[in-house]
Amino acid sequence: MTDRRLAESVRVVGSGLLGTSIGLALTKRGVDVVLDDASPSARRLAIDYGAGRAPAPGDAPGLIVVAVPPDVIARVVAAELAAYPDALVTDVASVKRAPLDELVAAGADVSRYIGSHPMAGRERGGAVSARADLFVGRPWIIAGHDGISYRRAAALEDLILDLGATPIEMDVEAHDASVALVSHAPQLIASLLATRLTGGSDEALAIAGQGLRDTTRIAASDPVLWGQILSANADAIAAVLRPLRDDLDAVIGALADIDAPGARRTLVEAVAEGNVGVGRLPGKHGHSGRYTTLTIKIDDRPGQIGRLLTEIGEEGVNMEDLRLEHSPEAEVGFAEIAVVPEAAGRLADALTARGWTIMEAER
Amino acid sequence: MTDRRLAESVRVVGSGLLGTSIGLALTKRGVDVVLDDASPSARRLAIDYGAGRAPAPGDAPGLIVVAVPPDVIARVVAAELAAYPDALVTDVASVKRAPLDELVAAGADVSRYIGSHPMAGRERGGAVSARADLFVGRPWIIAGHDGISYRRAAALEDLILDLGATPIEMDVEAHDASVALVSHAPQLIASLLATRLTGGSDEALAIAGQGLRDTTRIAASDPVLWGQILSANADAIAAVLRPLRDDLDAVIGALADIDAPGARRTLVEAVAEGNVGVGRLPGKHGHSGRYTTLTIKIDDRPGQIGRLLTEIGEEGVNMEDLRLEHSPEAEVGFAEIAVVPEAAGRLADALTARGWTIMEAER
Repeated sequence: MTDRRLAESVRVVGSGLLGTSIGLALTKRGVDVVLDDASPSARRLAIDYGAGRAPAPGDAPGLIVVAVPPDVIARVVAAELAAYPDALVTDVASVKRAPLDELVAAGADVSRYIGSHPMAGRERGGAVSARADLFVGRPWIIAGHDGISYRRAAALEDLILDLGATPIEMDVEAHDASVALVSHAPQLIASLLATRLTGGSDEALAIAGQGLRDTTRIAASDPVLWGQILSANADAIAAVLRPLRDDLDAVIGALADIDAPGARRTLVEAVAEGNVGVGRLPGKHGHSGRYTTLTIKIDDRPGQIGRLLTEIGEEGVNMEDLRLEHSPEAEVGFAEIAVVPEAAGRLADALTARGWTIMEAER
Repeated sequence: MTDRRLAESVRVVGSGLLGTSIGLALTKRGVDVVLDDASPSARRLAIDYGAGRAPAPGDAPGLIVVAVPPDVIARVVAAELAAYPDALVTDVASVKRAPLDELVAAGADVSRYIGSHPMAGRERGGAVSARADLFVGRPWIIAGHDGISYRRAAALEDLILDLGATPIEMDVEAHDASVALVSHAPQLIASLLATRLTGGSDEALAIAGQGLRDTTRIAASDPVLWGQILSANADAIAAVLRPLRDDLDAVIGALADIDAPGARRTLVEAVAEGNVGVGRLPGKHGHSGRYTTLTIKIDDRPGQIGRLLTEIGEEGVNMEDLRLEHSPEAEVGFAEIAVVPEAAGRLADALTARGWTIMEAER
């Protein structure tokens, strides 16, 4: 009974990228979506995009999704819990312990609150960037806690599945420690590394290669949003960065006195430890040895990469990953294609027969 | 006269990835390449690959390329200068000041030595990975110094152009500072960040996204080779890492006392400064605003990306960059395609008409 009503009416508070995307996806599925926002004009814009309808007297949502900036999450969730005493309330912020602690401290009814975190988003936010399929194929963490029953939380899992995402359960501490490690600390490190480039010479920047570009790509992220995220997960991020700082001190010490006993070993071991760490990353881009990479030379003109990938498709081989590499002014580039090891040899032969130049087979 | 002889006979010392690739490319162009290596079996292997011939009495190379590990560069260059008193000698190591200093200190005739550094290479080394076109389209730095005349060094520029690379002139200090900034410091930072993953939980690693993968990709590099590179450029790398460490200290301090005055501002400014730095990167992967990115939804099955890129080619649009993004187990992924801004709107319309889903137009 409760579950049926949840599917029939969902209230979304916050009409930014995530809230509007949720509204679009649920509306498409025939769900009655009520959209609200502290800003009436933002709400009207999201409604214009088709993400739901304005609130009306008598609304009785079974599920409420709070998609507001991190620094107001707890306040808005508490207000929703109070205003809709029968609804299950979730939020989609990227930190989970602080809002729960605030709610408990404020005496909110957390037996109806369970935080969550879709691992989706784009570099640009706002309703204008929203898409009904934003969550398709993405992990969506359900951050459980002791104050809510498993049965009560099931409606959230249904929502996640309805949106095409993959639910992953984690308690709030594990969630915050995990995102500190895989998202928040990397963001800060990329930003600090990219900051070095502000003082670099033009000639130095001109010889920058793919390694630096990859290492600093996420440094282009929004400072205000990230300021809120980092502040809300400060302890967990500091716990990741402190040992990194200690290692960095050791490396700088080794570099400063490179002929001292152990200095070179410190550097070699720093790189070797990094090998171990990156080797633990699962999946497509990981260096886990699951895929074999073929590097193929391509001309830098329209259609070449398309022709290459079409021919790979004609050979019946599924490309697990692709990376393009070329200098800005060069007339040739390289496509690095990851395939399952069983297919690599046959594909290399077939492409060579079709006239492609295979640079090297790695791993 | 001198220049003609240079083109006729080149001696390559060291038969690893770079030496063998140079030998292959020059042999293809009809140059008499003499290959040497401290290891007779390594030399034989490179000769088997067609990278040149064994040394013989009476060899009179005009140009000698030393392509040995960084820690023996100066010793080998000095020996070559002494053994061939008419030859111009270059090396291809990724640091340039230390070998020059060593040569000057040893009394070598540096009026015939000029270091260089091809910005090329692969994650795997050795003659087995060598390719005649390894240098095509890559920057190749000529690291000038006061002890050699411009005219004498011209033969090196000819070699670089013959190999298809783009010569870039920089003095040794500028070279070492530049590669410290854009290559060596990023390598260490990526390694130190990846090292954090050694202690991460499996569930944390399971939610790792593209940002972490990009930020840590180069952490998979060879520790022994990098130990030599980092040791040889220690001062310049330390000069990049010290201010980074100071910034990291400030960030950790802010995280440790997040409610202190100025703490949140420290975090926001760290990310904002990173925006400025990454914005200075030129070219294809940079965030310089030169290209517009279209994000297109793709099914994860053979041929889809090929079909997409073929159709982009059919529309006459040159793709400046491409990035694939998808979760390991997801059935859909996203192709991010960078094109010149003038073409973006038309291409988005054309692809939509062909049935593709465009997620968002960025920048």
